[in-house]
Amino acid sequence: MTNYTLRQLADYLSADIDSSNAGLTITGIAGLTTAKSDQISFLSGPSYLKYLPQCQAGAVMLRPEDAARYQGAKLLIDNPYLAYARLSKLFDQSHDKIERSVHPSAVIAKGVKLGKNISVAANAVIDRDVVIGDDSIIGAGCYIGPNVCIGARAQIAANASIYHSVVIGDDVLLHSGCVIGADGFGFAPDKDNRWCKIYQLGSVIIGDRVEIGASTTIDRGALEDTVICDGVKIDNQVHIAHNCRIGENTAIAANCGLAGSTSIGRNCTLAGAVGIVGHIDVTDNVHITGMTMVTKSITTPGSYSSGSSAIDTREWRKNAVRYNQLNEIVSRVKALENDRNK
Amino acid sequence: MTNYTLRQLADYLSADIDSSNAGLTITGIAGLTTAKSDQISFLSGPSYLKYLPQCQAGAVMLRPEDAARYQGAKLLIDNPYLAYARLSKLFDQSHDKIERSVHPSAVIAKGVKLGKNISVAANAVIDRDVVIGDDSIIGAGCYIGPNVCIGARAQIAANASIYHSVVIGDDVLLHSGCVIGADGFGFAPDKDNRWCKIYQLGSVIIGDRVEIGASTTIDRGALEDTVICDGVKIDNQVHIAHNCRIGENTAIAANCGLAGSTSIGRNCTLAGAVGIVGHIDVTDNVHITGMTMVTKSITTPGSYSSGSSAIDTREWRKNAVRYNQLNEIVSRVKALENDRNK
Amino acid sequence: MTNYTLRQLADYLSADIDSSNAGLTITGIAGLTTAKSDQISFLSGPSYLKYLPQCQAGAVMLRPEDAARYQGAKLLIDNPYLAYARLSKLFDQSHDKIERSVHPSAVIAKGVKLGKNISVAANAVIDRDVVIGDDSIIGAGCYIGPNVCIGARAQIAANASIYHSVVIGDDVLLHSGCVIGADGFGFAPDKDNRWCKIYQLGSVIIGDRVEIGASTTIDRGALEDTVICDGVKIDNQVHIAHNCRIGENTAIAANCGLAGSTSIGRNCTLAGAVGIVGHIDVTDNVHITGMTMVTKSITTPGSYSSGSSAIDTREWRKNAVRYNQLNEIVSRVKALENDRNK
Repeated sequence: MTNYTLRQLADYLSADIDSSNAGLTITGIAGLTTAKSDQISFLSGPSYLKYLPQCQAGAVMLRPEDAARYQGAKLLIDNPYLAYARLSKLFDQSHDKIERSVHPSAVIAKGVKLGKNISVAANAVIDRDVVIGDDSIIGAGCYIGPNVCIGARAQIAANASIYHSVVIGDDVLLHSGCVIGADGFGFAPDKDNRWCKIYQLGSVIIGDRVEIGASTTIDRGALEDTVICDGVKIDNQVHIAHNCRIGENTAIAANCGLAGSTSIGRNCTLAGAVGIVGHIDVTDNVHITGMTMVTKSITTPGSYSSGSSAIDTREWRKNAVRYNQLNEIVSRVKALENDRNK
Repeated sequence: MTNYTLRQLADYLSADIDSSNAGLTITGIAGLTTAKSDQISFLSGPSYLKYLPQCQAGAVMLRPEDAARYQGAKLLIDNPYLAYARLSKLFDQSHDKIERSVHPSAVIAKGVKLGKNISVAANAVIDRDVVIGDDSIIGAGCYIGPNVCIGARAQIAANASIYHSVVIGDDVLLHSGCVIGADGFGFAPDKDNRWCKIYQLGSVIIGDRVEIGASTTIDRGALEDTVICDGVKIDNQVHIAHNCRIGENTAIAANCGLAGSTSIGRNCTLAGAVGIVGHIDVTDNVHITGMTMVTKSITTPGSYSSGSSAIDTREWRKNAVRYNQLNEIVSRVKALENDRNK
Repeated sequence: MTNYTLRQLADYLSADIDSSNAGLTITGIAGLTTAKSDQISFLSGPSYLKYLPQCQAGAVMLRPEDAARYQGAKLLIDNPYLAYARLSKLFDQSHDKIERSVHPSAVIAKGVKLGKNISVAANAVIDRDVVIGDDSIIGAGCYIGPNVCIGARAQIAANASIYHSVVIGDDVLLHSGCVIGADGFGFAPDKDNRWCKIYQLGSVIIGDRVEIGASTTIDRGALEDTVICDGVKIDNQVHIAHNCRIGENTAIAANCGLAGSTSIGRNCTLAGAVGIVGHIDVTDNVHITGMTMVTKSITTPGSYSSGSSAIDTREWRKNAVRYNQLNEIVSRVKALENDRNK
């Protein structure tokens, strides 16, 4: 258990304490409706104001302008949601007991250079000529291919796979089951309609502070590299094809798929299961809602969507039939308009 | 080879035999059109009646009211499809020769408590303080993180990954490549538009009799737990985000994605590639057809759908253009109506 | 570094050299806009003609009829894109240094038969009675289940999982994280609405020259086998359910999902994230565009599509509402037509 006094948390956050008991022990974080007297909570937006009166938290983080809305102990801070994010790190114990050593069952090939204070877990395999920076953690059963270069403070979770020559920056977190640097999907049909493999000679370059989710796959480039810029966050089960480029601080939610040679700008957000066709560009500050199909370049920042939402299946069936008659229906409307205008 | 007499199968199923040869040896199960004289088949519904006359099976399972429709040997039972399911277990040999021991290459950390009759396959890694119940099977290359608790009779297939502190019930089957308890996708933007990680302090709680497919990912909760209730069946490549709750006996087909904090009721079925937005509730007994996008809570049991079906690409292109003019088209219809009503 | 003279490349491709310097050293391949004087490039189609004048490549591959369009050194060949594919193999070094031996940490169970010149990497696990053909490469951490049979020249990348009794042909490439032969998703509801598992007694049969992407899952059949025919290419994160059959040389892009018992013909292409319902047939030479939902059999070769494309979210919201009123809108058009025709 990790405990802090309210005073310690306020100092960590540079927040003002509004409480007579700065020495109160805080053992964790919880939502407004579930927090107990030894936990701290937070008001992330106006829709949660209704939960304040009954809140049982030991303290609540809120904006100075909301101070009067809560009578209990509080920390006043401009961005309580960001404060919650920062506090969450303090209470995370997932890596507390990791031994900083190379487990005897791990296999380290020749030419590998490991930095200081590194953990390599059981049955991990690090292939020849890999370089790994200081303070990095390689999980159980991971495979790190030949010539891979990983920066400092990386966390590679169990059973991740990294193919040869991939380059990864500092402070990167890769989750279990992700596969970085597998072959891009490239084939040329021969005269007999058989597929001739295009060997994928590029690699994958991943910047600093990138997080990559479980079972996400990022393919190596055909001739040049697939590039994931600094600060990009990618959720689970995302597929990024060869030669893509994802700009700084863009966040991609689960189940998205990007076809080859597509470029996404900076500070974009893709909600879940978005599909983006290949060989297009999406500019900076674009937000795409869930399950949207993007079929051409987006040159103007903004929010983009496609698709339709669930309704009763019997109603949907009738509409779906009509959808596939839409062009003809418009012709009928046009004919009516022409008749009217005669 | 596992063989049974027709009598043995009838006894196992509590079915009536209608055959002069109860001692017939049955070596397997097959469909009506492919079954041979040493195999048993089944009539799962009226659409298969047409295959009965030519059926070569050693015996067929059908409902008593259908008995007259088949002249060969038969087992009479109320639900032949369920009977097939029950019989399939008898003929499954996938685990027959599994050695009930810990392979010397497996790595078992300190504090681990293993039940009786457990199998831990080669190169599996079981981290500190894990508890595993009797008769469980841990596949090759699996990683079981610190403090994980797994019940009795679990089957964890090769190369599955389970993060720290996940709790799993009895009679659970996890397939290869699944990842349970990776971080939920949570970040707060700071004032420079960088993403500040929200450490995921909850866990994943999985009930009894749950099956989880290959490469499926279930993320740990942000503050509370992600919960998968008893009897839930999840297919391959499903993504379940942090803080979701899936009710008892709900079945989720492949490629579905559930965003964070969404709750699905009991006895629901999601067909393939359904996407469900975050922070909504789907009530009990809801059925959602394939590739549907659910964007708001569903409060009434029933069947729900969205999307449109494949047609010739040239036709589709014209209709897709019209779809994005729909609101304007409706205005034109309204104008026509107004003119008519003048 | 692998180097070839222009003459060597021309001979390998059976291309004509149009250059005064057949001895020029070529160290790699690059696109027309990035190629340097020691690299070879190619003109894959007319849209790239504009890049020829500034091209800095040591040589360019183009069709004889395009020879006059480029002044520098060139190789003349009928299909430059196919030539590029063939050359890419020469410059691929990913397997150059793989040791042809069984790593001491690999676990090989009893009854396993390994061909000649095989590589089994660190911590791979090969279960009992597996047969693997000559020149095959098994990556680190792979699990090959009991009775699996793999042909010659297979490449199984790190952390792939293959369940019992799967059969794989010659010249097959499986990428990391793929799972072949997990249970199909089959359950029969019992009288209490609990799911009774249907044990999956079939297997997966994979032909020659098949490539299967990272994190792709192909489930074993319920009673018969799931079949992937010769020359099929499957990208990452594809799900193929039990009892499917994929015809020769069909290519399936990332994130597609095929429900159970569906059959796809020969020489088809599925773009990304296509979903296909179960128990239907798609004939030969069918091409399906990205994110299309296929809900019934396709009996005529051609291109098929569904869905709609991204637009501004505010516009989309209005249209999406109208979509769910489409049938009623058509009734209004019909009423207008009836009134006009009176």
